Amino acid sequence: MTLSLYSDEHYMREALKQARYALAEDEIPIGAVVVLERQIIARAYNQTEKLRDVTAHAEMLALTAAANHVGNKYLSDCTLYVTIEPCVMCAGASAWAQVQRVVYGAHEEKRGFRRHGNLLHPRTELATGILAAEGAELMQQFFAQKRK
Amino acid sequence: MTLSLYSDEHYMREALKQARYALAEDEIPIGAVVVLERQIIARAYNQTEKLRDVTAHAEMLALTAAANHVGNKYLSDCTLYVTIEPCVMCAGASAWAQVQRVVYGAHEEKRGFRRHGNLLHPRTELATGILAAEGAELMQQFFAQKRK
Repeated sequence: MTLSLYSDEHYMREALKQARYALAEDEIPIGAVVVLERQIIARAYNQTEKLRDVTAHAEMLALTAAANHVGNKYLSDCTLYVTIEPCVMCAGASAWAQVQRVVYGAHEEKRGFRRHGNLLHPRTELATGILAAEGAELMQQFFAQKRK
Repeated sequence: MTLSLYSDEHYMREALKQARYALAEDEIPIGAVVVLERQIIARAYNQTEKLRDVTAHAEMLALTAAANHVGNKYLSDCTLYVTIEPCVMCAGASAWAQVQRVVYGAHEEKRGFRRHGNLLHPRTELATGILAAEGAELMQQFFAQKRK
């Protein structure tokens, strides 16, 4: 498979790298990046354990870092890539930030936002299933380790 | 009216104080406190403008501060008081934190979480309408100033 430089797959691979950092630190392995004009302006992984803070999801940290980077709380020209379907909290945050696109990998039936309807901003485009198997595999690896 | 020391009204007055700090700083005037065993362990007001960060809602800052205080990301013995109905993001955060009770003042038809169903944790109790007029009045004051 050739990997186009500015494809969703390319940026999702960067989000997956972040998820692997989380796994290495015994965090639920979810990673996110924010892209503006083809550049990654923020990278983050879930740190709820380390920070003892339920709000420290990869998406939240990435959105905050991206807002710091652009000096604006609105991210209406940005795309948020995240390895797993965002939860209600993170969907809500992306709505407030008016993110242009949300791209996620694997669905999360139980904790994902979609079963509550479309909680994204009305103008936010949504793409799903990008490298979903890779994202899901990291989650399965984490929970298999936990059960040991 | 007598004000019982440990009543919901008492703690909501403290949240309203926080909302007034927000108003004084030209932020949307919403305040929150977190209470554990009758003690206020966190106070916060909305700072989305100052921090240029959509995630800096009063509830989010208060939940993070409370988790720091108790050294645990779960707040299952805590009550979150907030002057206005929380949004989807903040409801989601309180669900992750497994907050014991959420008490809010005025309803927020458009941005409040309730029109999306019950997004709180299944074990979280909800009380509403506490000093609702005071909370709503601060919001009206803010938006009336903005329109000038």
